[in-house]
Parts: sequence; C-alpha cells; structure tokens
Amino acid sequence: MIKSNIIYNMNCFDYLKKIYDDSIDLAIIDPPYNLKKGEWDTFKSEKSFFDFTFKRIDDLLPKLKNWSSLYIFNTPYNSAFILQYLVSKWLNFQNWITWDKRDGFSSTKKKYVNAQETILFFTKGESHTFNSDDIRVPYESTDRMAHATKVWLLKNWKRRFPNKNWKLCTEVWHITSERHKNKVNWKVVSLWHATPKPLDMIERIIKASSNEWDIVLDCFMWTWTTAVACKKLNRVFFWCELNQEYIDIANSRLNKL
Amino acid sequence: MIKSNIIYNMNCFDYLKKIYDDSIDLAIIDPPYNLKKGEWDTFKSEKSFFDFTFKRIDDLLPKLKNWSSLYIFNTPYNSAFILQYLVSKWLNFQNWITWDKRDGFSSTKKKYVNAQETILFFTKGESHTFNSDDIRVPYESTDRMAHATKVWLLKNWKRRFPNKNWKLCTEVWHITSERHKNKVNWKVVSLWHATPKPLDMIERIIKASSNEWDIVLDCFMWTWTTAVACKKLNRVFFWCELNQEYIDIANSRLNKL
Repeated sequence: MIKSNIIYNMNCFDYLKKIYDDSIDLAIIDPPYNLKKGEWDTFKSEKSFFDFTFKRIDDLLPKLKNWSSLYIFNTPYNSAFILQYLVSKWLNFQNWITWDKRDGFSSTKKKYVNAQETILFFTKGESHTFNSDDIRVPYESTDRMAHATKVWLLKNWKRRFPNKNWKLCTEVWHITSERHKNKVNWKVVSLWHATPKPLDMIERIIKASSNEWDIVLDCFMWTWTTAVACKKLNRVFFWCELNQEYIDIANSRLNKL
Repeated sequence: MIKSNIIYNMNCFDYLKKIYDDSIDLAIIDPPYNLKKGEWDTFKSEKSFFDFTFKRIDDLLPKLKNWSSLYIFNTPYNSAFILQYLVSKWLNFQNWITWDKRDGFSSTKKKYVNAQETILFFTKGESHTFNSDDIRVPYESTDRMAHATKVWLLKNWKRRFPNKNWKLCTEVWHITSERHKNKVNWKVVSLWHATPKPLDMIERIIKASSNEWDIVLDCFMWTWTTAVACKKLNRVFFWCELNQEYIDIANSRLNKL
C-alpha cells in the first residue's frame, strides 16, 4: 500500500485505488477549473468537465473517514454544480468559502471583474473536527478592543469582552493571491505554476479541520504547499504528482524545513 | 395596467400578471432566504422553498426584455440551486457577486462564521447594458497611482496608466451591512426591517445595468431602497408591497428627495 509523507509519481486515479477506505481525516481538492489555462485545464465540453470532476469525487468519498472534512476549490459557477453533487451524495454542507483574491482574472467591461475563487467545505458523518480557536483572525477595528476595556459591550444584556485571542474566522477570506503578491512594478510575472495556492490559506484549512498526526490527502496538489503545511503542523500527508519536476521542488522545500 | 413610479399595495404574483411581457430592463429580486427569520421567511421544507422561488422566477422571466439584466439575492447555498435553475432556463450567467458584509450571522464554533450574501447576475438575450465606467471603485493602493506618474506600468510590453477615474468594479463587494452600520456601542439594534439592503449597493446595480429612463422592477423590494435609488438616478420603477406601513415609509422617503 501507499506510504505516508512520500510523494508518489503517479496519477491520482491509480493512487486513490491504493489508499485504504475510511482512512483520510481531511481531503483538500484543487481540481481543474475548466478555464483553458493549459492542456490539464481544457475539456471538450462543460459536461465532460463535470463528468471528470464527479468521477474523481466518487473515487475519493470511500477513502474519507466517517468524521472527516472535505474542501474543494473551484470557480463560483462550477462550485454551484459541485455543491449540488455533494449534497446528492449526502455529505453535510458547512460553508461556501469565498477567497477574495484582490486580483482580477480579466478586464472585461461587460460584467464585473472576476476576483474570487470558491472553496466548498463539506463534512462526512455526524460530527467533525473544527478548531475554531486555532484560526482566529485579528479584529478589524482596534477601537473595539480599546472601547471594551473602558465600557461594557452589551449583548443580550450580558457583559461581553472581545476575545483577547482575536475573533472567529468568517467564510470570506481576504488572502492576496501568489500571482498578485509576486507582481514586480505592478506587472504580473510568470510563476512556475499557473495557480499556486497561498501557504497561509492551506495552513488555515489544516489547522481548522484536522488535529496533530491526522491524515491529510491532497490529490490534485499541483504544488508543494499542502505537504509543507503538513510538515510544519505535524500532520501526515498523502500526495501523488505526475510531474517529476514538481516533485523535486517539493522535496527540496520539505528538506529545508 | 399597472402604472410606473407608484407603489401598489398588492402581492407580487397578482402584480406581475398585470405587467406587460417584454417590458422590464432590469429586475432586482430579493426573495426570502428560508432562514426562518419570520413568517415570510419560513417554509415547510427546502423543497417548498425552492418551488416557491422557482415559480416566482417563472412568472418573472416573460416580463423581461430580450436585452435585460436580472439580479437575485440569496445565501450562497440557495444561490447554487437558483444558478442551476436559471442556467436551465437558458439565461446567461454573468457573475456570482459576493457581498462581503463584514458582519457575522451567527457565532457557531463548528464551522466558519457566515458573513456573506450572494447576488446572482444573469442576462437575457445576446447583448445587455453594462456601464462599467459608471461604477468604478478607488484603487486600494495610492502607491500605485504615485508610482505610475513616475515609472511606466508595463503590461504585455505596452505602457499602461492607472485610470484616473479609478479601477473597474470586481464581483466581490465590500459593503458594510445596514445592521452593522447601525450598531450602537458595538451592539446590534433592531432596525424597522430585518434585512434592509444598503442604498449604495442598489445604486451600483442600477447604474451598471440600466440607462436613464429604463424600467426597473423590484418585486420583493421590502424597503424603499430601490425606489429611492431609481428616483435619484432617473430610472422608472415598478414596485408592489403588501404592508401599508412600508409603503407609507417609502412614500415619505421619496417625497423628501
């Protein structure tokens, strides 16, 4: 069988077959978006794209434990269809997470500029891990904290204090895209991968929806991000990748930790 | 037949029947969310909620002109189903607009805190009005403007200038909710209506997707917002409302303009 914490050079379909059923605590799935950004992202039709995506989901579901979590990235449009597919498979809808990328995809003038990706968060079974205290985010207003030390914050007539460890994380994530972060003089520069996901975003998902030594699967990982986040946070990862060049980059990143 | 710029005290089903087919340029629909916030928002089942919503959409579609725009508010979860319904009716998907409310609905600790609403933007027919220059938003970074006056911004090896009239509007809208805006000492106070929509948001929709003297329909308006925005922006509005109290408030707001 497949070993953990080793990057296998094989395709995802074959890899998934070799993983035991009921073994994964957290799956992070970043499938193609059908945006025609490259051969791997081009499908004959919308139908063939959804057939491919749903088949991949069907292969994945038996591998998930009964108290596991599943995150799937895509465009909002595609996510609407994926959401309904997952609901039809009796998974529990938790959140429609909006990744506010602050970076436009296109500058069309016939509609609003695309600037978000969607992360669907579903769980399997009746209970699930969610470490809300491990992913608190700063209050936007420092006034609120200052005010609270002087005057009571009243809610339902009880005294409330803002949490010193910051506020609970909402489902709208303001995380600058790697593409935008790496602009030089406001010009987009080519990254070695078309759509890398920010490390802090993957870390948030792993902290929220798994505990130490839980098993994390990323079957369309594309980049080293999930593996690095797992190693930093003491999680066990399962990952395959077809491109040996990506595997070499990932291994060198892992060795640096 | 129904007259424009007059608020009729009748229900939406009867009102729609009295409007001519192919007459509406822009429809803004803010239907119930099935969140059980009141009798008007409570349905026996998810199925009966969607049946109600889809029936309302069926009644509306023939009233739209062939180059019209349609905006529908809801939760992300419900919007996923509404999106598929509209696609099945051959309307053209344009944007999944995320309204980032910066205001949590609940403080559950078993998932990310809900903090957004969705506005689906669809069009009917092969072309549509979209005044992208009328809804430009400020650049986030003043650096960018300062930089551009000194150094060229290169994109595809052509010199680019940031637009002095600001940047194109994206599909993620950071607009503080009325509920949040009206907090007193960080405490939510009761508003006269449970879910009022901010005036600047409705104005953006009207500016983008209609021209002067176009006909705007809001058949679940709830509040005076769309009527006021139409009067300010020289658009013709159609609106019905069952609650005479709301009509009186709306008329007094309109008279103040």
